[in-house]
Amino acid sequence: MSERISGIAASAGIAIAKAFVLENPELTIVNTTSSDSAQEIERFMKAIEKAKGELQVIKDNALQQLGEDKAAIFAAHLLVLEDPELVDAVKSKIENEQASAEKAMDDVSSMFITMFEQMDNEYMKERAADIRDVSKRVLAHLLGVVFTTPATIAEEVIIISEDLTPSDTAQLNRKYVLGFATDIGGRTSHSAIMSRSMEIPAIVGTKVVTSKIKNGTPLIIDGIDGEVIVNPTEEEVATYRQKQEDYKAQKAEWAKLVNEPTTTADGQHVELAANIGTPQDVQGVLENGGEGVGLYRTEFLYMGRDQLPTEEEQFSAYKEVLEKMEGKPVVIRTLDIGGDKELPYLDLPKEMNPFLGFRAVRLCLEQQEMFRTQLRALLRASSYGNLKIMFPMIATLPEFRAAKQVLLEEKAKLEAENITVSDSIEIGIMVEIPSTAVLADRFAKEVDFFSIGTNDLIQYTMAADRMNERVSYLYQPYNPSILRLVSMVIKAAHKEGKWVGMCGEMAGDPIAIPILLGLGLDEFSMSATSILPARTQLSKISKAHVAQHMDTILNMDTAEEVVAFVKQNF
Amino acid sequence: MSERISGIAASAGIAIAKAFVLENPELTIVNTTSSDSAQEIERFMKAIEKAKGELQVIKDNALQQLGEDKAAIFAAHLLVLEDPELVDAVKSKIENEQASAEKAMDDVSSMFITMFEQMDNEYMKERAADIRDVSKRVLAHLLGVVFTTPATIAEEVIIISEDLTPSDTAQLNRKYVLGFATDIGGRTSHSAIMSRSMEIPAIVGTKVVTSKIKNGTPLIIDGIDGEVIVNPTEEEVATYRQKQEDYKAQKAEWAKLVNEPTTTADGQHVELAANIGTPQDVQGVLENGGEGVGLYRTEFLYMGRDQLPTEEEQFSAYKEVLEKMEGKPVVIRTLDIGGDKELPYLDLPKEMNPFLGFRAVRLCLEQQEMFRTQLRALLRASSYGNLKIMFPMIATLPEFRAAKQVLLEEKAKLEAENITVSDSIEIGIMVEIPSTAVLADRFAKEVDFFSIGTNDLIQYTMAADRMNERVSYLYQPYNPSILRLVSMVIKAAHKEGKWVGMCGEMAGDPIAIPILLGLGLDEFSMSATSILPARTQLSKISKAHVAQHMDTILNMDTAEEVVAFVKQNF
Repeated sequence: MSERISGIAASAGIAIAKAFVLENPELTIVNTTSSDSAQEIERFMKAIEKAKGELQVIKDNALQQLGEDKAAIFAAHLLVLEDPELVDAVKSKIENEQASAEKAMDDVSSMFITMFEQMDNEYMKERAADIRDVSKRVLAHLLGVVFTTPATIAEEVIIISEDLTPSDTAQLNRKYVLGFATDIGGRTSHSAIMSRSMEIPAIVGTKVVTSKIKNGTPLIIDGIDGEVIVNPTEEEVATYRQKQEDYKAQKAEWAKLVNEPTTTADGQHVELAANIGTPQDVQGVLENGGEGVGLYRTEFLYMGRDQLPTEEEQFSAYKEVLEKMEGKPVVIRTLDIGGDKELPYLDLPKEMNPFLGFRAVRLCLEQQEMFRTQLRALLRASSYGNLKIMFPMIATLPEFRAAKQVLLEEKAKLEAENITVSDSIEIGIMVEIPSTAVLADRFAKEVDFFSIGTNDLIQYTMAADRMNERVSYLYQPYNPSILRLVSMVIKAAHKEGKWVGMCGEMAGDPIAIPILLGLGLDEFSMSATSILPARTQLSKISKAHVAQHMDTILNMDTAEEVVAFVKQNF
Repeated sequence: MSERISGIAASAGIAIAKAFVLENPELTIVNTTSSDSAQEIERFMKAIEKAKGELQVIKDNALQQLGEDKAAIFAAHLLVLEDPELVDAVKSKIENEQASAEKAMDDVSSMFITMFEQMDNEYMKERAADIRDVSKRVLAHLLGVVFTTPATIAEEVIIISEDLTPSDTAQLNRKYVLGFATDIGGRTSHSAIMSRSMEIPAIVGTKVVTSKIKNGTPLIIDGIDGEVIVNPTEEEVATYRQKQEDYKAQKAEWAKLVNEPTTTADGQHVELAANIGTPQDVQGVLENGGEGVGLYRTEFLYMGRDQLPTEEEQFSAYKEVLEKMEGKPVVIRTLDIGGDKELPYLDLPKEMNPFLGFRAVRLCLEQQEMFRTQLRALLRASSYGNLKIMFPMIATLPEFRAAKQVLLEEKAKLEAENITVSDSIEIGIMVEIPSTAVLADRFAKEVDFFSIGTNDLIQYTMAADRMNERVSYLYQPYNPSILRLVSMVIKAAHKEGKWVGMCGEMAGDPIAIPILLGLGLDEFSMSATSILPARTQLSKISKAHVAQHMDTILNMDTAEEVVAFVKQNF
């Protein structure tokens, strides 16, 4: 009898293979004290050096296979091992408390982990995960324990583990690792994001896979519906082989549209663009037929480092994206930091409600030197492609006017220095705060375009933190109030001859797509891998047909009614 | 030469008198160790007993002069002194570390204070203030230091102090204390709230009064404009005597309208109601001519205790309010806990963004036993007056339907038990989440009334935490987007023949009042002391005149334009 375990579908596709259970190494500390401090310190420093050597190799592999931003994770790990706060604390524990090297390392790293975990923000919690990963590595060397690493796998398997650490995922060999399932994690956890970018079917957050599945157990991973089938029957294997084929066929159908424009069944054109985080992501955009970049999040340039990026570093990143996109539109969003995304070197005060706090353009208008540096880099890059600049978290017209004024000042300065700046840069804003959506008709007179940021717009409009599981049922993209706001923004923009994009997750959502088309959205920006499915879907929908049902949808009471209507009629 | 010190106007009025500087007692600990633990424990327990005796007296005074809710502060202080976690920790420090009683008390209370202060929520921070107040009292006894207490004052003075503790304020004698000014605090700090309820002119948050003002210095407190005038000239004294007279005259003008209905210059009636927190507040409502209670916040019933209030306790509180209001409308809001208001005994998980979290009706729909107890108490009380029940934080129609369903179930049960329940209870909702304002036309078909909660509605619509000083400039009641939402809600309700109230601070704001009148608001609910000024203001405004300017206002770009227009035209 087969058994089914449900989890969160993290990456689509079907995998059929035996389980490879990646166990956490048993790191039991037996010797807690030692009177020979000098010897313990020597052991500790040797273990650190070995760990560094390994991490250097992993980092180099990651750089080649996964790109610069993934490799940055291991650069951060190396920094942990060089952090004097950690290293000196361990040494001092060895010397002053006659602790063994392993006990000292374990105590000190646990202290740091607890400290970081208690900080109520995702960035700091990730630092805790980094330290946990690194300290395990050092402890393994001190205890003479050999890690089971995914790097040793040389047959087709499905990895089963509690979680996948950044170093685990970087070592996955796509040739042999057909899929994975973990106990913990969500759709946006590190392992889930990696699985999508590597296109490996994956299920996370099953809670029980490690306790229910043994090494070598035959498995099916259904990354489309989020199920692990343990010990599948022959019939089930046959069914899922078919599902695998169907999925491949669907992907092939999608692939046909790579170089096609996006056209609806009744011949209307809309633009499908991609959201990116780094210049390396552009390749994926082009491979998936993106007609532009609808959102380049510049935060990553500022993260995982100990000071602000220079104008040159930024210029070079923006120029690279613009050049690679070869004249296709590229919307670059100015720094949206604060909230859940902190920068240690900016020393921002802790806030009680960071999502309602001092972030993005609010911060940039105060820390103008930082803002001006970014704007100069953007303006200088503008002559290398089709740049559009977008300000995040605009809540009032005076904020937009102030930000635009700073931009124009920097443009004038550059021109006085005889530096070429494009004269056709569009200046737009994110519509992600309800006040701005409600006042869109006034904004539309002054901006060149809107991009609706549904992730934030929904959480503010519903007053529900999208990261908080207890209120996740209120994070409702299809709530008629959200659709009304989207409709108001689009109508207001079109009245002034401006265009409207959307760069939240909603833009790539198959249920939302026909509604957004019907409401008149001009540009849909989504993760690159969603573009071809969306283009396929749009090619089968008539815009005129969906548009005539919009009044009905906007006058519904609940999100559930909207979903039922879309499923039945579109 | 006189000097002026600015601060936050916490309570209106003018006071002219000499300074009485209330110094913090010097509590320097000289003896930190003692080998005679038994003796130290005895000293400690004696000090605790003395402190308890004092607090009992203060509590009894507070009960007589200030009412039950203020007295509850001292009940909480007494609980601190009986808390075994604190008392045992001190004893153990004395025994195990040979600490002196004062050192042990100081260490332990500091630890608790630090712990509570680090908790990111106002309720817990207040617990830190309680412990600080109590531990000072115990330390003073241990060190033989005599407190300067406001109770000893027997001539007309203005109190100058760093802050006023709850026990300080409870001892103020209104006969002699004409006003006060403090270094710290804001408009909603404990001392500010007390000053308003005692009608003593007060200025808080001056930062410098204690360092600049000596005992006996002649002072003027201008609680209208938030200024302390130090060493005023004769001319200044004359000017402020006149301002004092003017203020008295204004209060007298207001007082004339106590028993009058609220009528605009063109004869339109609106209702002015009050926001209350406890049954004791009803007296103030009636004294200030309130035509109803627009918001009874039931949270206080649940706070400052170690378990849920029983149905009987709640019934008795609701009945008391309804009876005292003698048939005037009383809108009682069901529990709005969570967010910044935590209940220790509910053990709610800490949230990253509590204002966007699991609170109010979200919590009540999950913890249904708690909700049903409150609803039963409300239903049973309904036959003693004119009760309207209001659900807070409604974001979707299914939430309202679910809450109403629970209410109807409890009503049916009570009727089956032959308990009288009024058949004319109106059931309404707070409109404080943007989604609900945007969808007000759908809600209006099902609710009996709306009450717009501007405090939350503004913070969600502008995505700006109203408690966060760094984004306070975005907390804009006059932003046209807010006014549009208010207008949408009123139009939607009137179309269905329902009424709309407002219970945020905006309802009592002189700039907002003419706009709200023009938009058609039916009921304005505010702090009791704002009712008569509002009634006076409304009596001078023509509703027809302001109404004709609403389109102009709703089509403005910024809050600044709105304010300028109101000041010039209304």
